[in-house]
Amino acid sequence: MKRIAVFTSGGDAPGMNACIRAVVRTAVYHGIEVYGIMRGYSGMIKGEFVRLDSASVANTIQKGGTILKSARSQKFMTKEGRQQAFDQLVNNGIEGLVAIGGNGTFTGATLFEQEFGIPTVGAPGTIDNDLFGTDYTIGYDTAVNTALEAIDKIRDTADSHDRCFFVEVMGRDSGYIAIPCAIGGGAEIVMIPETQMSTEAVIDSLQNSWRRSKTSFIVVVAEGEEEGNAHTVAQRVKEAIPELDTRVTIIGHIQRGGAPSAADRMLASQIGIAAVEGLLNGMRNVMAGIVDRKLVYTPFSDTINKKKLINQSFMRMVEILSV
Amino acid sequence: MKRIAVFTSGGDAPGMNACIRAVVRTAVYHGIEVYGIMRGYSGMIKGEFVRLDSASVANTIQKGGTILKSARSQKFMTKEGRQQAFDQLVNNGIEGLVAIGGNGTFTGATLFEQEFGIPTVGAPGTIDNDLFGTDYTIGYDTAVNTALEAIDKIRDTADSHDRCFFVEVMGRDSGYIAIPCAIGGGAEIVMIPETQMSTEAVIDSLQNSWRRSKTSFIVVVAEGEEEGNAHTVAQRVKEAIPELDTRVTIIGHIQRGGAPSAADRMLASQIGIAAVEGLLNGMRNVMAGIVDRKLVYTPFSDTINKKKLINQSFMRMVEILSV
Amino acid sequence: MKRIAVFTSGGDAPGMNACIRAVVRTAVYHGIEVYGIMRGYSGMIKGEFVRLDSASVANTIQKGGTILKSARSQKFMTKEGRQQAFDQLVNNGIEGLVAIGGNGTFTGATLFEQEFGIPTVGAPGTIDNDLFGTDYTIGYDTAVNTALEAIDKIRDTADSHDRCFFVEVMGRDSGYIAIPCAIGGGAEIVMIPETQMSTEAVIDSLQNSWRRSKTSFIVVVAEGEEEGNAHTVAQRVKEAIPELDTRVTIIGHIQRGGAPSAADRMLASQIGIAAVEGLLNGMRNVMAGIVDRKLVYTPFSDTINKKKLINQSFMRMVEILSV
Amino acid sequence: MKRIAVFTSGGDAPGMNACIRAVVRTAVYHGIEVYGIMRGYSGMIKGEFVRLDSASVANTIQKGGTILKSARSQKFMTKEGRQQAFDQLVNNGIEGLVAIGGNGTFTGATLFEQEFGIPTVGAPGTIDNDLFGTDYTIGYDTAVNTALEAIDKIRDTADSHDRCFFVEVMGRDSGYIAIPCAIGGGAEIVMIPETQMSTEAVIDSLQNSWRRSKTSFIVVVAEGEEEGNAHTVAQRVKEAIPELDTRVTIIGHIQRGGAPSAADRMLASQIGIAAVEGLLNGMRNVMAGIVDRKLVYTPFSDTINKKKLINQSFMRMVEILSV
Repeated sequence: MKRIAVFTSGGDAPGMNACIRAVVRTAVYHGIEVYGIMRGYSGMIKGEFVRLDSASVANTIQKGGTILKSARSQKFMTKEGRQQAFDQLVNNGIEGLVAIGGNGTFTGATLFEQEFGIPTVGAPGTIDNDLFGTDYTIGYDTAVNTALEAIDKIRDTADSHDRCFFVEVMGRDSGYIAIPCAIGGGAEIVMIPETQMSTEAVIDSLQNSWRRSKTSFIVVVAEGEEEGNAHTVAQRVKEAIPELDTRVTIIGHIQRGGAPSAADRMLASQIGIAAVEGLLNGMRNVMAGIVDRKLVYTPFSDTINKKKLINQSFMRMVEILSV
Repeated sequence: MKRIAVFTSGGDAPGMNACIRAVVRTAVYHGIEVYGIMRGYSGMIKGEFVRLDSASVANTIQKGGTILKSARSQKFMTKEGRQQAFDQLVNNGIEGLVAIGGNGTFTGATLFEQEFGIPTVGAPGTIDNDLFGTDYTIGYDTAVNTALEAIDKIRDTADSHDRCFFVEVMGRDSGYIAIPCAIGGGAEIVMIPETQMSTEAVIDSLQNSWRRSKTSFIVVVAEGEEEGNAHTVAQRVKEAIPELDTRVTIIGHIQRGGAPSAADRMLASQIGIAAVEGLLNGMRNVMAGIVDRKLVYTPFSDTINKKKLINQSFMRMVEILSV
Repeated sequence: MKRIAVFTSGGDAPGMNACIRAVVRTAVYHGIEVYGIMRGYSGMIKGEFVRLDSASVANTIQKGGTILKSARSQKFMTKEGRQQAFDQLVNNGIEGLVAIGGNGTFTGATLFEQEFGIPTVGAPGTIDNDLFGTDYTIGYDTAVNTALEAIDKIRDTADSHDRCFFVEVMGRDSGYIAIPCAIGGGAEIVMIPETQMSTEAVIDSLQNSWRRSKTSFIVVVAEGEEEGNAHTVAQRVKEAIPELDTRVTIIGHIQRGGAPSAADRMLASQIGIAAVEGLLNGMRNVMAGIVDRKLVYTPFSDTINKKKLINQSFMRMVEILSV
Repeated sequence: MKRIAVFTSGGDAPGMNACIRAVVRTAVYHGIEVYGIMRGYSGMIKGEFVRLDSASVANTIQKGGTILKSARSQKFMTKEGRQQAFDQLVNNGIEGLVAIGGNGTFTGATLFEQEFGIPTVGAPGTIDNDLFGTDYTIGYDTAVNTALEAIDKIRDTADSHDRCFFVEVMGRDSGYIAIPCAIGGGAEIVMIPETQMSTEAVIDSLQNSWRRSKTSFIVVVAEGEEEGNAHTVAQRVKEAIPELDTRVTIIGHIQRGGAPSAADRMLASQIGIAAVEGLLNGMRNVMAGIVDRKLVYTPFSDTINKKKLINQSFMRMVEILSV
């Protein structure tokens, strides 16, 4: 392998640049050429390739977002789109890919490899942490810390005014972000898709605490909570306990940005190195991840089909710590 | 004057604790006793008084929120409520008050002084900065910095995805928070109550930029914008320019919390000292403020009735800087 | 067991309060009484005990330092001192201890248990991360992030002025803090006790880069580096490469303070719960830790005598990433 | 005037990039061309000119350091050097300069204008705030906040261990940085060049507090303090009060870096606009500044020769607030 390319795809995550940097420098270290593809599969189809060297990624490790940008590509879902992407890669002499993203990205890469034989090694770049094959995804630790800093600020005002705040954090299918936000933020209750706590149970719990003359509360709600988002839950609680002064904060997209944390820079760097060395060792259709502090390569078929379960003991922690 | 009391009222603001601390220590310095009243006028009526000394406020200067808590009091709006409050003050030997809050607080204090003769000196504690009689209010600088840090994170993801973000910041009646957020956040457009920019003008401006192939945008919207809040504006823009990938972030209550900035600690400390020394010098019904770096006392009637106008040159700055 | 006590000892670390909070609430949850001992063994000898309940630790999870304070005790090194400590515990009806600290603390606890039979379960509270029996110690993640934020700021000025900065981070016996600071901070070189890189090698490396017209550098130096501290190394480099504009920054004690990171709050909470539940299950002379995301109890004799080795692959990472 | 150039000189300061950005966009707004000169006068002599347009400064407002870099130039001190610089400007068609820096920079510009007639308008870019002609310099507010955040962390550990910390902040000739750090950081004592407090007075004050059983202290020392730096003072205090557990932290170069605060971005933007519009209006040998919230242009001869005095009431504040 003489020349590889790297791209980011799906939602951006802090640490993506640290991973790109590691990919580039590892390629340089091993004497192979490396290109960046702008805007993921969309740029691959259009041929938006940029030659990268060691200096191209200087001073990027601390930057949020992705210098290669990200975009969705409907066209790559079609055979015709993938054919165009393949032609672009061939024309540019690119023999292997590092794809930084999530399962949507890896699904595309799997299909692409089956049809055209271009090998891809994946890097788990998503704040959601819901990828099988790695303990943590790139961006997760930063997103949690960002949300937690916001909750620390909200607690100031919740305490000052004896209020009940419903704080919605990201996490479409899982409570990975919500759990440490709740435990670290000293929240009384956490609502996540995995446990399906009913709004009635939330109301009961708040009423009990209110009677014990607790007057300020934080309830962390995961975005993908089936019982409804933070506004819906707050509305129903307000109806049931009118004397409660409720407020809602949706932390939202600020969780995606910002300088990556130390842990995310380490993880992104480890995985970026591993992805390139995996490609050089002939791997394909696998994602590089860290499980129990050890590097592992997991087939895309497993990252896509297997579910990473949340540690059930965390729910018990919320219960004990809000005693 | 042998004994005074201090309380916070209205929305909490970072730096209120620094101001309480300055009030307490200035009282101690001048050899007078000082009490804290919990929950503003509500606690005054109920007699929730706490003796404070120098040690009570140790390690509070950096804390967000207010250690004396804040609450609204319907009862203080009634003659009967104010009578009860006066009785409580008399019973506790309190001869003067420092009220940290905004115009609602000062209106109550004015009435209270007229009826019962208890002197109050006010301190401008509100993130909104819309108080005549001081260049900056306590909490404003911190709130702006908090919002700006959020916008910095949003810019990461706006750039990575070529998106248009509508970011709503606090400011019910004015653009004081929105303006520095827009200028400091590198926003293309700012919508504030003072200028009544139409949504059509926003659409025009975005369309123009889009045609010049600019692809990511930040539009800062003040909460009290008459054209509607960020969601409404974003909705109408999306209808007019469907190819624009729009997103909305409401920064919300996190702007109220957090450790106060250096400027807010300085301002809160200066004003806390000035409030006590004003009381000792026989002042009443005035707010201590800093105008052009000099201490001034402004009658409550002026802080309530006069409007502090936003510097019009700031709108021109947004225009020049987004060229 | 009806009543236990918790104390912090040794250097303070962010997350100690989160751990104290978890200890207190777990005790309450299990229906046992809990006391805090001020100033570690010193306060134990003097009988500085404070009754704690759930509310005592409200709003402490985000606080740096330790609300129970910490101190060294020469007296506890003597049999007489330990006898006094034992008498105080007996007089206060305390049957078990949770000690948050490092190996010095655990050594004392072991001796104490052998002589007087009071069981202790330890919690690894130190920013240094050099404790066998846990992947990470409480405070480590925060300290690394604090140092890294400082390095991010230093890089701004290093780049602007084409300078070579020698940044000294904490870590008396190991490079645990220095390694992620170097990788995450984009440093060119890291000097840690474990590898004993000579100053000559540093000079060689800088000279090579200088010749390739690289002009700004960051060298991370662990405090306990045998070749000398940052000032010594910088001095010798300056003598060898006079054209290099060198500067030194000792990050120092700021690494010990600040709000704990999300990871440290989680870890501290998990370990605090585990420590109390370990005591209740009859454990003694063990430290609660998390290894590969699983809770483990390690005998104090192992935490004291076994060495936790740094991952050698990290040194290779620094080499690849600074290519 | 058809073409101007901008450069940064002297120590870097947060907000320099925001100022460069404002200069560039104001030039574009007024239809004139703008170049960046790398490395100040040094790059001017060597002809390191870069054409800048609106996009060149996109996404720079939040960045620390200076994208144009800064350097000292011995050569510009010579007539020959200035002749070369002039030739370069003439060859590149540059008719006016915006110099972002301090008095060293302005002294050079004055001489340059006298000899060669090239007009310069200055922008006060230095963290030190010791420039006559502006209430605040670009970078000052950020530097103070950075130092204060460090002191907040140090207070955690000072309190936990009952220690006395001597914290040295920047400020070679003045206490501008030290004063708000002391007031905002809740320090007991501040030592600044302007007041020449003797170390004996510091010892007296600490001994008095120690006797009143205060056990943790923060003493803020300005870098340029005549009585010696933090290490010297700490050493002498330790000798006089051996029971005090003293520690020293030099905050150092981290004060120069980091994302500029909201106030610094506003100030830098205002001044950048004013500098260009000043040049276009025929000004020369003046610095644009903000005094009492109004734009003023001050002759370089005044910024260099007049001294901006520190507000003496601030010293009284430290005394009252540490009561």
